[in-house]
Amino acid sequence: MGNAPKVALLGAGRMGQVHGSNAAANPRLDLAYVVDPHAPTAEALAAELGCAVASQDAVLADPEIKAVLVATSTSTHLDVVLAALAAGKAVFCEKPLDLDLARLRAHAAELSAPPAPLYVAFNKRFDPNFRALKARIAGGEIGALESLHLISHDPAAPPPAFIPTSGGLFRDFSIHDFDMARWLLDEDPVELFAWASCLVDPAIAAAGDVDTARIVLRCASGKLCVISNTRRSGYGYDQRAEAYGAKGAVLSGNERISTLETWTEAGALAAPIYPGFQARFAASYRAELDHFADVLEGEAEPLTAYAASVGASVLAEAAARSVASGAPVRLGDV
Amino acid sequence: MGNAPKVALLGAGRMGQVHGSNAAANPRLDLAYVVDPHAPTAEALAAELGCAVASQDAVLADPEIKAVLVATSTSTHLDVVLAALAAGKAVFCEKPLDLDLARLRAHAAELSAPPAPLYVAFNKRFDPNFRALKARIAGGEIGALESLHLISHDPAAPPPAFIPTSGGLFRDFSIHDFDMARWLLDEDPVELFAWASCLVDPAIAAAGDVDTARIVLRCASGKLCVISNTRRSGYGYDQRAEAYGAKGAVLSGNERISTLETWTEAGALAAPIYPGFQARFAASYRAELDHFADVLEGEAEPLTAYAASVGASVLAEAAARSVASGAPVRLGDV
Amino acid sequence: MGNAPKVALLGAGRMGQVHGSNAAANPRLDLAYVVDPHAPTAEALAAELGCAVASQDAVLADPEIKAVLVATSTSTHLDVVLAALAAGKAVFCEKPLDLDLARLRAHAAELSAPPAPLYVAFNKRFDPNFRALKARIAGGEIGALESLHLISHDPAAPPPAFIPTSGGLFRDFSIHDFDMARWLLDEDPVELFAWASCLVDPAIAAAGDVDTARIVLRCASGKLCVISNTRRSGYGYDQRAEAYGAKGAVLSGNERISTLETWTEAGALAAPIYPGFQARFAASYRAELDHFADVLEGEAEPLTAYAASVGASVLAEAAARSVASGAPVRLGDV
Amino acid sequence: MGNAPKVALLGAGRMGQVHGSNAAANPRLDLAYVVDPHAPTAEALAAELGCAVASQDAVLADPEIKAVLVATSTSTHLDVVLAALAAGKAVFCEKPLDLDLARLRAHAAELSAPPAPLYVAFNKRFDPNFRALKARIAGGEIGALESLHLISHDPAAPPPAFIPTSGGLFRDFSIHDFDMARWLLDEDPVELFAWASCLVDPAIAAAGDVDTARIVLRCASGKLCVISNTRRSGYGYDQRAEAYGAKGAVLSGNERISTLETWTEAGALAAPIYPGFQARFAASYRAELDHFADVLEGEAEPLTAYAASVGASVLAEAAARSVASGAPVRLGDV
Repeated sequence: MGNAPKVALLGAGRMGQVHGSNAAANPRLDLAYVVDPHAPTAEALAAELGCAVASQDAVLADPEIKAVLVATSTSTHLDVVLAALAAGKAVFCEKPLDLDLARLRAHAAELSAPPAPLYVAFNKRFDPNFRALKARIAGGEIGALESLHLISHDPAAPPPAFIPTSGGLFRDFSIHDFDMARWLLDEDPVELFAWASCLVDPAIAAAGDVDTARIVLRCASGKLCVISNTRRSGYGYDQRAEAYGAKGAVLSGNERISTLETWTEAGALAAPIYPGFQARFAASYRAELDHFADVLEGEAEPLTAYAASVGASVLAEAAARSVASGAPVRLGDV
Repeated sequence: MGNAPKVALLGAGRMGQVHGSNAAANPRLDLAYVVDPHAPTAEALAAELGCAVASQDAVLADPEIKAVLVATSTSTHLDVVLAALAAGKAVFCEKPLDLDLARLRAHAAELSAPPAPLYVAFNKRFDPNFRALKARIAGGEIGALESLHLISHDPAAPPPAFIPTSGGLFRDFSIHDFDMARWLLDEDPVELFAWASCLVDPAIAAAGDVDTARIVLRCASGKLCVISNTRRSGYGYDQRAEAYGAKGAVLSGNERISTLETWTEAGALAAPIYPGFQARFAASYRAELDHFADVLEGEAEPLTAYAASVGASVLAEAAARSVASGAPVRLGDV
Repeated sequence: MGNAPKVALLGAGRMGQVHGSNAAANPRLDLAYVVDPHAPTAEALAAELGCAVASQDAVLADPEIKAVLVATSTSTHLDVVLAALAAGKAVFCEKPLDLDLARLRAHAAELSAPPAPLYVAFNKRFDPNFRALKARIAGGEIGALESLHLISHDPAAPPPAFIPTSGGLFRDFSIHDFDMARWLLDEDPVELFAWASCLVDPAIAAAGDVDTARIVLRCASGKLCVISNTRRSGYGYDQRAEAYGAKGAVLSGNERISTLETWTEAGALAAPIYPGFQARFAASYRAELDHFADVLEGEAEPLTAYAASVGASVLAEAAARSVASGAPVRLGDV
Repeated sequence: MGNAPKVALLGAGRMGQVHGSNAAANPRLDLAYVVDPHAPTAEALAAELGCAVASQDAVLADPEIKAVLVATSTSTHLDVVLAALAAGKAVFCEKPLDLDLARLRAHAAELSAPPAPLYVAFNKRFDPNFRALKARIAGGEIGALESLHLISHDPAAPPPAFIPTSGGLFRDFSIHDFDMARWLLDEDPVELFAWASCLVDPAIAAAGDVDTARIVLRCASGKLCVISNTRRSGYGYDQRAEAYGAKGAVLSGNERISTLETWTEAGALAAPIYPGFQARFAASYRAELDHFADVLEGEAEPLTAYAASVGASVLAEAAARSVASGAPVRLGDV
């Protein structure tokens, strides 16, 4: 690991643990520090990962640190990222860069041509199944793409206390699907329509949010895309993508926790799908960190950064407006 | 067959052949006559089915004929049905009763309380898979129904010459899905939004129609339903229904022409799905005729008649209006 | 039906009902009589099928009767068949022709070159899935066939009273798989080894039979075939065939009662397979009767008759000897 | 990693690379040295894994080394293991301990009660799917186990030069399935019968070996087990296990390289299964090394060691004898 670039992890919460343990296991990165405002949390994770604790200021001032992994609370992402970029650090930022589209655009200059590489973690683009789907579409096997269906259902609703600061279903949850749609459609949609309901938990409605949505995107070419989002599936973490083209279709299904089938008089029971994002997307989190190592080695440009963040946020903003107005929203107006 | 009611088939075309051969094979019906304005067509089918040829007037005047199966050209359905009902014949009418919602409503009185039983053939309600889906939802296994996805993709586009008299994608093709949505949602939707494109064949656009559509329905309870329609799938006749509820989901998939799987280095190839509606829905056509026999024996009320026809037609009308206006349509206004 | 050949059904039991109702529904056959020594049984079935009751003697003496369908009790098959052939009737005989290989061979002359066509009902050859498998192998997609696995598991054990007259597992149950093996291997095996246990019901052992067997066949070319037989699967009527070749494999799986999948936290539950042979093999019973109609019309030679009966019986006899001796059996010695 | 026990890898070939890289990535083991008689090979792997090169003598004499991972050529396994155990090192030995059953038994004393822990790497017991299968059987969901089918097909035959030193199909390849059979049956079989052919490559026959085998095991309780082995499947690395019980069945299927399905007129093509053991069993190799770390920490007894090695070797020996004699072999006589 002598030559691996030194990196620091900012934020030791749920996503910090994911990225931190992947960084510690990746021989192409040398995870040196864990930073967290809550000292015991930082210390526990540092001990687990075999590295030291430091303050954010110390890390940003340390010339040996080449990059930071930003997994702080969402509301602080943008400030931390701007400070790190200003300090010349390459940045891996857990999505979203910011929940507020206007604020994001206000920093367009620093973020779209940053002084150091910036990667924003739309990890689903690194999922092996979705990558294979993208490659299959590009390979022409189904002819010209005509429509897309993205399904993203959480296993169970978050605690109501999470809702008020989450940004709402579209900015917090659908944001990944908006990025997937832009990536797989390979064409920016021109208009969006959304309907949403609160069927899972009245506390979500009380907090001003929705939990069940169907979103339709329309491209200038006529391509159509449907996004299905639900906060509680009752059967696990459902992550599928279906692409329909002129000569056939290609579908990326759910992985299951094993290949077992149990045959009884009730039928053939296949094993459950994964219960949550950590297990389902473990490979994607490792792969995006490898991509970031490529970026640090100068071998790749960040796949997703400011432009992808704005692109997905525009769709999220439009979805919220469409639900509020009950009408389709032209994306050029957002 | 001595006691089976005598019936006549009106129309010896594609659907007449389907219903005619099922009637001939059904011991509960005594198919006596085939009627078709084109004499050789009537004679050929009558010979095949082992019955006689007659004129429509003769059939309607024959007191021994208890019922007629109407499979004439769509534009004549309503007149033929009204004449048959006026003659006291029970009527099995291939859908639609009429393409024109206003005309249908103009005959509300005769059709909603007809002098003899009237069944309108929404055959998909009789498909064993969809019936099992309906029963599973009703059985409560997935908790309260929250959303529905209906997929209906034709294998290949019809000849462009068919388009001008077809009524258009929504009245001709989606009409089955509109009926399925009403049946499975078990609640009348209150609003509809649709986008549609012409991606399959420019001749369809030239004829003023679309070939690819995504339709969203909203219920007062918040239930959402997406309908996917495409005139050409490239992989067969795709007929699926997916119901998502509070505790899980139940999905009705496609039947395949055999259970074969071929394993090679390319992967595991399952047999194709059915290439068209005749094979895919053969069981449903037999079952709906059995239902009609039940109706003739006084053991059942027609499952779908005037109200279902109007209900589905309202959705078709709304979809056409939504595409034309680019805005959602309140169904109470249609 | 004026030109359809007149046939009589001999035997109104379980298989008689299957073949009788298929014959009544087949326009290429004119089912005229039902014969059964138990008059009420004959009368009930005749009423259901819309034909008359007659005695066997009367049927065989009636010059208008062109063929008989033999579904009498197994022990009488051979005598009835010989009498019918002697009377010049074409014969459709439910398998087996006889349980006793020596007795079968004693009548080789009359049976191998019969005075009228003789078809012995190895219906599984007419199952659409198995036919597709056979065609796929013949089509060369998996290269030269190297091994075969046939799985035939009954849902639940027969009543113990059935065992003593059944002929035992191999002659009664495995006989179908022995015929399938000969048909699919397209090469006569040269040696057989079998092990069998009584695991399902001690009453079966008490009656001198086994209920669970694994049989291996070896061909001169080196091709190997495994047959799995069980009297009680616990999950339905399991009927699969797997063919492995030089370039891949082709597998014929089980049909399910519907295409439903139910997704819950327990996993994805596919619908049960068929519970019994009547539903699973319904298409094959109709198809073999159609084949018999072809035979009657002179358009086909019987696919399976004396030679196939002897071929399968030799394997059954060998399996019984192998289990008794604990050693492989050379088929040339049987 | 300060407290992790120091280990050395003996052998830097194909399996040495698998276990070496897993050891390097496992925080519970401190991989200190790579040993290989071919210096450049040792150096290249040591560089890749970030450790040093040493000689076997130095490693065995080093008191800081607590354990060795033996992945030398098969013929040297036993000598190396005996030397390492004599030096007080815990041993993780790639299977087999030795190809020669008599030689193994000659060292029963040292190996069955070794001076330091000995683990023999039957990795398939650590595959998550097979573990889940074992747990499902133990959980009683399918009732008492009655029969087992193990399928292990290699994607493509090894080079003929490999055959003469391999020990033959049964000792080299089937050995894993023999261990699986003993583990899943939970009862030692009493008799074995095998037939084998050379269908894949005549050079294999010329080298005195076979490439296609079907093996049947019989237990005293009547349980039956079939093992299917083929050196070349044509469709990937096929690893399945099927358990049939009194109330149903549980089957462990193949993992696929992705969840993609491509739907065209040819049917629905699922992604290929894994092409080889490295990818298919990657999780099992990591898990068995974790198990070995548990052993080193005194938290577990080795799951498989001398007894399992002898148990599987007895079945391999019996299979070879059965093929040679054409008769079943009583395992008590081997």
